[in-house]
Amino acid sequence: MKYGHFDDNRREYVITNPRTPWPWINYLGNEDFFSLVSNTGGGYSFYKDAKFRRITRYRYNNVPMDSGGKYFYINDGESVWSPGWKPCKTELDSYECRHGMNYTTIKGVKNGVEAEALYFVPLKTWAEVQKLTLRNTTNEVKTLKIFSFVEWCLWNAATDMENFQRNFSTGEVEIEDSVIYHKTEYKERRDHFAYYSVNEPMQGFDTDRETFFGLYNGFDEPQTVLEGAPRNSEAHGWSPIASHYVEVVLQPGESKELVYVLGYVENAQDEKWESKNVINKTKAKATIARFDTAAKVDAALAELNAYWDNLLNVFTIKTGEEKLDRMVNIWNQYQCMITFCFSRSASFFESGIGRGMGFRDSNQDLVGFVHQIPERARERIIDIASTQFPDGGCYHQYQPLTKKGNNEIGQGFNDDPMWLILGTTAYIKESGDFTILDEPVPFDNEVGSEVSLFHHLTVSFNHVVNNLGPHGLPLSGRADWNDCLNLNCFSNDPNESFQTTENKSEGSQAQSLMIAGLFVVYGRDYVELCKVIGKTEEAARAQQHIDAMVAAIKLNGWDGDWFIRAYDYFGNKIGSNENEEGKIFIESNGWCTMAGIGLEEGMVAKALDSVKERLDCEHGIVLNNPAYTKYYIEYGEISSYPPGYKENAGIFCHNNPWIIIGETVQGRGDRAWEYFRKICPSYTEEISDLHKVEPYVYAQMIAGKDAFKPGEAKNSWLTGTAAWNYYAITQYILGIQPTYNGLRIEPCIAPEWKGFTVTRKFRGATYLIEVKNPNGSMKGVASLTVDGKAIEGNTIPLMPVGGTYKVEVVMN
Amino acid sequence: MKYGHFDDNRREYVITNPRTPWPWINYLGNEDFFSLVSNTGGGYSFYKDAKFRRITRYRYNNVPMDSGGKYFYINDGESVWSPGWKPCKTELDSYECRHGMNYTTIKGVKNGVEAEALYFVPLKTWAEVQKLTLRNTTNEVKTLKIFSFVEWCLWNAATDMENFQRNFSTGEVEIEDSVIYHKTEYKERRDHFAYYSVNEPMQGFDTDRETFFGLYNGFDEPQTVLEGAPRNSEAHGWSPIASHYVEVVLQPGESKELVYVLGYVENAQDEKWESKNVINKTKAKATIARFDTAAKVDAALAELNAYWDNLLNVFTIKTGEEKLDRMVNIWNQYQCMITFCFSRSASFFESGIGRGMGFRDSNQDLVGFVHQIPERARERIIDIASTQFPDGGCYHQYQPLTKKGNNEIGQGFNDDPMWLILGTTAYIKESGDFTILDEPVPFDNEVGSEVSLFHHLTVSFNHVVNNLGPHGLPLSGRADWNDCLNLNCFSNDPNESFQTTENKSEGSQAQSLMIAGLFVVYGRDYVELCKVIGKTEEAARAQQHIDAMVAAIKLNGWDGDWFIRAYDYFGNKIGSNENEEGKIFIESNGWCTMAGIGLEEGMVAKALDSVKERLDCEHGIVLNNPAYTKYYIEYGEISSYPPGYKENAGIFCHNNPWIIIGETVQGRGDRAWEYFRKICPSYTEEISDLHKVEPYVYAQMIAGKDAFKPGEAKNSWLTGTAAWNYYAITQYILGIQPTYNGLRIEPCIAPEWKGFTVTRKFRGATYLIEVKNPNGSMKGVASLTVDGKAIEGNTIPLMPVGGTYKVEVVMN
Repeated sequence: MKYGHFDDNRREYVITNPRTPWPWINYLGNEDFFSLVSNTGGGYSFYKDAKFRRITRYRYNNVPMDSGGKYFYINDGESVWSPGWKPCKTELDSYECRHGMNYTTIKGVKNGVEAEALYFVPLKTWAEVQKLTLRNTTNEVKTLKIFSFVEWCLWNAATDMENFQRNFSTGEVEIEDSVIYHKTEYKERRDHFAYYSVNEPMQGFDTDRETFFGLYNGFDEPQTVLEGAPRNSEAHGWSPIASHYVEVVLQPGESKELVYVLGYVENAQDEKWESKNVINKTKAKATIARFDTAAKVDAALAELNAYWDNLLNVFTIKTGEEKLDRMVNIWNQYQCMITFCFSRSASFFESGIGRGMGFRDSNQDLVGFVHQIPERARERIIDIASTQFPDGGCYHQYQPLTKKGNNEIGQGFNDDPMWLILGTTAYIKESGDFTILDEPVPFDNEVGSEVSLFHHLTVSFNHVVNNLGPHGLPLSGRADWNDCLNLNCFSNDPNESFQTTENKSEGSQAQSLMIAGLFVVYGRDYVELCKVIGKTEEAARAQQHIDAMVAAIKLNGWDGDWFIRAYDYFGNKIGSNENEEGKIFIESNGWCTMAGIGLEEGMVAKALDSVKERLDCEHGIVLNNPAYTKYYIEYGEISSYPPGYKENAGIFCHNNPWIIIGETVQGRGDRAWEYFRKICPSYTEEISDLHKVEPYVYAQMIAGKDAFKPGEAKNSWLTGTAAWNYYAITQYILGIQPTYNGLRIEPCIAPEWKGFTVTRKFRGATYLIEVKNPNGSMKGVASLTVDGKAIEGNTIPLMPVGGTYKVEVVMN
Repeated sequence: MKYGHFDDNRREYVITNPRTPWPWINYLGNEDFFSLVSNTGGGYSFYKDAKFRRITRYRYNNVPMDSGGKYFYINDGESVWSPGWKPCKTELDSYECRHGMNYTTIKGVKNGVEAEALYFVPLKTWAEVQKLTLRNTTNEVKTLKIFSFVEWCLWNAATDMENFQRNFSTGEVEIEDSVIYHKTEYKERRDHFAYYSVNEPMQGFDTDRETFFGLYNGFDEPQTVLEGAPRNSEAHGWSPIASHYVEVVLQPGESKELVYVLGYVENAQDEKWESKNVINKTKAKATIARFDTAAKVDAALAELNAYWDNLLNVFTIKTGEEKLDRMVNIWNQYQCMITFCFSRSASFFESGIGRGMGFRDSNQDLVGFVHQIPERARERIIDIASTQFPDGGCYHQYQPLTKKGNNEIGQGFNDDPMWLILGTTAYIKESGDFTILDEPVPFDNEVGSEVSLFHHLTVSFNHVVNNLGPHGLPLSGRADWNDCLNLNCFSNDPNESFQTTENKSEGSQAQSLMIAGLFVVYGRDYVELCKVIGKTEEAARAQQHIDAMVAAIKLNGWDGDWFIRAYDYFGNKIGSNENEEGKIFIESNGWCTMAGIGLEEGMVAKALDSVKERLDCEHGIVLNNPAYTKYYIEYGEISSYPPGYKENAGIFCHNNPWIIIGETVQGRGDRAWEYFRKICPSYTEEISDLHKVEPYVYAQMIAGKDAFKPGEAKNSWLTGTAAWNYYAITQYILGIQPTYNGLRIEPCIAPEWKGFTVTRKFRGATYLIEVKNPNGSMKGVASLTVDGKAIEGNTIPLMPVGGTYKVEVVMN
């Protein structure tokens, strides 16, 4: 069953039934001010950091789900309703939510009145702008009582839901003109406040939650709205909110637009006050003035749309597969941009208080957006590398507000360093900007410790070399990519986090074949980079280590039919036919086949066939098989999950692309394409009832074949899945690969494909690429011409900046 | 306006209007298993520790407030309703909630059906027992569809509301007979599970929350209940719940009782399983069997009532003041017992995840319950002292589950050590058990570090002596009793906790007159104890330090009309007429007058008159005046609160008794009595609308005269207020004081009192005390007889155990 449809022309997903199987959300903002908004208007806003600067309050996992947001209540004399159906849940005559590129519109129609709420964060603006358009489609005069609603969060989202002893006494607001200012703690250490305005004289307001709702009323029935009269409450402690009351009289056919601005301001210490206890509102008023008419709002939205035109026209495809095109051209790129902004911090599954920006995550996410905004990718790489330690080790996460390493999680995830090589080389290949390698970058953000970024790559590479185990394979440390395979943890205490409890690395034999394959893949990238910049000795040194690793993998990492996953603390195999459960894992087979290890000897094909046989199912490739049915203290969190969920044999969408890419290494385009479609959201739209989460973005996990409910997805939006699938489809299936000296074209497609076209902007030039597949081939380029001129090999050389070039590629 | 009334005979508060101005709650359990229950059935349960072993889920600060609990839904074919009005909010024909001593009944009547839910935790039982009694008062047959409901918490209440990425995949249940078992994470490290049973064959059930409610329905409208049909859902991940479905057919006049048991079980590692993945239910079944009939439940409740008879008959009064008698005989003692069990961890204001057991708090709470359960007081004292450091410093809090010091809060609150002297001497005076002083007690729970408890008292005393500032007054450290007067903190960062951020004690002149007075009061207790046990040299040594402190207070602590509050980091006065704001504080004037410092010179009377003039108001004595109107970085959190709230000039009920006791030192019984009544809940019952919280227990804070809404109370239940008011009324106003060698009688009463009687069990004997005040005196005992025999002085000597003795006291 579907709950809406794609509107590709407008780059929107259109939801026509508000009762989606889970709140289907969108993200507003892409710089400093962010909002999450669901299809019924639920969600919240924050400035930069969802933990430390939460602007509006949100309650996760509530009953009913998705309670609280930016709501408009309409009392039209007959009914009390909301354009998004929720929170009132009054049945609407029609409903439509359109999630677009960083904006959302929600339209409801009731009793002949149309109400459409537009939500977006304009570019370079620390505010969410809302335009509420009201239309009277009847022949009668309509008097509408409009109540807006947001609930302020007391800034720190964690203590906001813990420390009521304090919180219930601190809340403070100011009300001036039609603006409600939230200034809790501004009197003391904070240099920031928030505000909510409307561009009409308000005829009333409320700022005290209990007064607005009544103590016993839910979001669906605020007593002031039911009564049709605000109470002009001034909040002192308890829970401050902001609700404007505006009465709108509409003649038959008339319409009216109201503009609301929900903003955030920071003032310098000596500019905090206008007068004693009266906050300095200059900046707030300036922002409000920028959006005080509907025309200004429309112009700002047009600007935002133009911004997205620019981002999305760097890479567009036409394949004849509508579902594929909309993902690659719109939604997959959009999701990559969102994961760039948020890492894993704030979604409807990530509470915004648990996690900062991941070292590993951010580097991987980079391959999904580096072509759109290389300059921000550059900044991100420097930020990430600055949290590294001199030995190449890394903080696993850092906090976006401070950009400092997060001590609570700490370090010791031994795959982390290698990802910096991926992020950096991907950036240079896209941009050609080698100067980043000379950028001075500190260790652990310590001033004075700066070395070149290239040096960071060297210590990253060396961190693996310097941490090998008895089988010549990389020690896994706290965990490798699979945060839940905790081989040095041995946790007995349920109050411990598997990720932060003791790391008994001393004397441990825990080694990871996933890191081994990763090392070979990005080690080769490192060697290539060294060669390109003329560091041939370093290239040779590195190559020796890679060769040794390949040999160690073949010797100690091959189980006969697939690559084993790891050695545990005691030196026992994991992911081997010897094991009773967890005989085979996806990660090591992904990375070792991506690295082409044993390609000639048939190991790649054999490993991939084993994956197909044992891990693949209707909804994708599961992580391991058989699932663990009991707790293995020596394996850690992975065995804590019920079978079929999460890391214990769930379909972890993030790593399905590794197998996809592995299949392209083997040249099996049919298999790669089959796997890609299985987890691609637009291809699963029809089973939204089962799949549950948004059909326009990837989820982290789909319940695997061992689960109670296979196919049910969880944790949508913030997942490396987005970048990896984009990377797999664009660079390995469609095969458009940026290199240091040109665009390599190396498709690996399903044999039934007759070809496809790609428009690719690269290093200032535009390439109109047509790939033809006259012989039903899966891989291999027979010829390549640029503007009709034949080129040797399959790499388009760098063409003069500013030009547009026609490229024709014919497959074998 | 009142929302109910006291029923003193049944020791109950009876709520007759469910729409109380705030949820009015009660506590169930007094050993290991605890529940909070509101007057509409809201609340939650936990085992020992509200953070680490939360059994059922609760959402604080929700909309509507108090959503979630132990609910019964009744679908009678006509209506869907609940006995507690909430969650359904269907209007009832009648409603009544009775909060008693560790039990609560909630009765609703609708359409001729009476439904009464009894909730309690039987003694020595790890379970809450619920008895639902249904009566058909009509002449027709009634068919009732009964749905029970609890929502499981995934054990750790903190991560339960943060880590949805994990939590939504881990939930697991088992369903067998009429029992729903919650076993999330039991498979891995947990050795515990929970269960919910009913003593009838159930005709259906639900264990998946979304299935039970529907994704968009609130607690008020579960879809299964509305439809009158359970769906027999089995939870796998998401949010497991437990709901039994039982159909009850009642003939005219017939009634039926259903018993539900919500329990917790721990199994040894090798007894966890019955068979693979099937939990060992032996213990659960045994507990269920203990309560499988209504008669067994009634017997258990009778046992609980008898237990409370015993606790409450140690000390009873009859004064002619009904409101006073019910507080002293019932509610104040009850609240003391609750604070003993919970310290400051779990109420409707304390979220159960923020704080452990306080060192200072627990010692003070002890004076409120030591006469009831001296053996548990003894255990608590040892537990507390075990977290102390060798230099006398203390962890400010410890976690009840582990009994270990809480590293997150740490140490450095320099009043902490002295409270151990109060706790210990109060225990010995009550029990006569000097052996506790020889008990070996470790430092920081380190095995092998044990010294005698007496040695702990010595290092406590010395900790003050060894930490004196330039004025000869005690250095305050991180804070003294006022956790919000942070004189060494200088915090600029709003994400810092004032209590845990840097403590710049090095070179600080921050000294506390509150600790100074405290040191004199309990230092004298230490000296007295030393003398009693024959340590005369130590007594003399200690006395010298006390004398020096008294001198230092007179020299550097007197401001002319009152005692100053402190010196700040730089040596500037706080709480002096020199200050622009915060000229006078309650704490130092409380402690220095309690210590009688300068009594002869008139300093005590003058200080107390200044308190009356500047701090007293209609609702009690505020903490400081004038309130701070801006942030003083050198004062810390106190100045972060809006004026009139919390530590910034709120009425902090905890310290009002210090002034009360100070007034009794001065002999002004009228003032003491006036102050006592102002904040005494039973005396404020009539203004429940303003006061907001329960009229049967004290709140931590009442908004002061500078507040927006003076008289509004917050943070009821868990506050040292309970013990201090009990201590003040019983030992200083009524003047019944346990001493090492007898009961001292030293009343200080209002002159209009003609006398009062007290029944006091003490050291195994029972004293029937009658105090007569023929001359309208306020203080001073003229004569004292025991069984008619005159006694010199005003101390009843220890009489033979087992006897009952008549004591007559005549005041001057």
